[in-house]
Amino acid sequence: MALQQALHQMEIVTAGEGFTDITTRLNDWVASSGVMQGVLNLTLLHTSASLTINENADPLVLKDLAAYLKALVPEEGVKPISGNGHLRPYCHADEGPDDMPAHIRTALTCSTMGLSIDKGRILLGTWQAIYLWEHRRNRHKRRLAIHAIGEAAAASSAKVSGSSASTMLARRNGSKLNELVQQRHNHKAWAEDGGVDTDVDLLIDRLHEIAGEDKD
Amino acid sequence: MALQQALHQMEIVTAGEGFTDITTRLNDWVASSGVMQGVLNLTLLHTSASLTINENADPLVLKDLAAYLKALVPEEGVKPISGNGHLRPYCHADEGPDDMPAHIRTALTCSTMGLSIDKGRILLGTWQAIYLWEHRRNRHKRRLAIHAIGEAAAASSAKVSGSSASTMLARRNGSKLNELVQQRHNHKAWAEDGGVDTDVDLLIDRLHEIAGEDKD
Amino acid sequence: MALQQALHQMEIVTAGEGFTDITTRLNDWVASSGVMQGVLNLTLLHTSASLTINENADPLVLKDLAAYLKALVPEEGVKPISGNGHLRPYCHADEGPDDMPAHIRTALTCSTMGLSIDKGRILLGTWQAIYLWEHRRNRHKRRLAIHAIGEAAAASSAKVSGSSASTMLARRNGSKLNELVQQRHNHKAWAEDGGVDTDVDLLIDRLHEIAGEDKD
Repeated sequence: MALQQALHQMEIVTAGEGFTDITTRLNDWVASSGVMQGVLNLTLLHTSASLTINENADPLVLKDLAAYLKALVPEEGVKPISGNGHLRPYCHADEGPDDMPAHIRTALTCSTMGLSIDKGRILLGTWQAIYLWEHRRNRHKRRLAIHAIGEAAAASSAKVSGSSASTMLARRNGSKLNELVQQRHNHKAWAEDGGVDTDVDLLIDRLHEIAGEDKD
Repeated sequence: MALQQALHQMEIVTAGEGFTDITTRLNDWVASSGVMQGVLNLTLLHTSASLTINENADPLVLKDLAAYLKALVPEEGVKPISGNGHLRPYCHADEGPDDMPAHIRTALTCSTMGLSIDKGRILLGTWQAIYLWEHRRNRHKRRLAIHAIGEAAAASSAKVSGSSASTMLARRNGSKLNELVQQRHNHKAWAEDGGVDTDVDLLIDRLHEIAGEDKD
Repeated sequence: MALQQALHQMEIVTAGEGFTDITTRLNDWVASSGVMQGVLNLTLLHTSASLTINENADPLVLKDLAAYLKALVPEEGVKPISGNGHLRPYCHADEGPDDMPAHIRTALTCSTMGLSIDKGRILLGTWQAIYLWEHRRNRHKRRLAIHAIGEAAAASSAKVSGSSASTMLARRNGSKLNELVQQRHNHKAWAEDGGVDTDVDLLIDRLHEIAGEDKD
């Protein structure tokens, strides 16, 4: 079957500084594109927001990530981290104290990202979600270019390589559970129940055992 | 129409530490490749220089970016940013004090980048340019792999999704202005006239209003 | 010749915090895929390990890189690098003091990477290797999605552009030496002989002279 492509620009409205999980919207677009297996390229068309992949479970991870980046790129400027030297404020400050830090935070993270599509969905790890990371304080409309190159149906799906026969069954089950968890995962459950075990948490624990994987 | 590919190695001579805007050279190559819509992959074939996308307007942004990265990766070594611990100078220092910082600055930015080609040009936001970021002090010859996969003519161009009919016209106009600005934009105007409003600045302001977008 | 694709998941066992050179394994898979020219996309399916390209020669570079990232993302938390403000420990700490730093280190490096395949091998610079960078303290099994889109045989290979005739021969020789070095390179030689000139070191020096390139 011949390769085909689809290119789209998605508009994403952010709520100001912080993370917007765009995994579901991206998967919905992939489904509508008809590409079952292929490469998916993302380009965020801005210089004060970026793309990142990180944990989809405990919201404290995102809280710590945001706090870290604020400390790494402070609004008041920066001193050499060797301890030698003085505070240097930014020169580019016309648009407010959050503007130049937003450009720097963008440069330290990602503006583009290449992913795989398999079985009509983005191939991600159990704990991964794709976030648009807004670095300006205020709400912004952001545009994301989404580009798929692939096939409407693939000859065969990706398989994990190089395994003894004895682990193949466990891996197949682990993979199925992974898909199930990704489909059913309520990202807010952790926040809402304070980490108390939900069905999904139990499934995730079981997935760990079967796949022989540690939690990320 | 069937997908095709083109792979090229471009030589870029840098002037030492700082930014070389390669957007125009990349677009020229895309035009010569004949790909009208496709994915463009870049790999910088070095470990002491990197790729970044950032603002193409106020040159103070690049100045602040460079100053920031020097403070984040000082030549004399680094102390833990918790405040606990001592200065650790680098072990790899045979090739001068700018060598190991250059490797680290490369690791914190990007060696590869995936973009979209649409209507025969790289799809970028209004304020975006692509830079080769030289991290060594001296002038270097750098090689960049440029790889396009796409079609000589595309069935349809990318459109922005999910909009009420009332904003479609504004968006189409905004998009046309965006292209116009990218084509006519004199990156040095800001530096030369100290930010005084040029035609392009006025166009950019108008583009803001029409597109309902804030400046990055 | 029509474009085709191949998607694979590779399992990589790390030895805990540090670097695993995956260049050879990736090239072996590319060879088995039959793609001679194309784009290669990598996605690491985890949020506490990442991908990086850096120097393949002096192991002190990797040692300094690791020490740098530990200082940049300390386990005890972070103070604003402006010098204003207090130490903030991480909130997400259930899985040990190395967990949240691992998520942050992942966000500051790369989870995805796009490369070119030329003549059946990954197109890299003389000094480049691709590393899986483990950020957790302990040994982990990691999964990497590897996706090639390209052709079984390419009409023509990538050439370096824009050169006077007088440098073409030197460049061709430099390119051949580059391939030779990449194939024969013993990454441990430097460590084992303390930097004493081996055959490969001499070849590398000669390559420098011929290509007119500085060492990265």
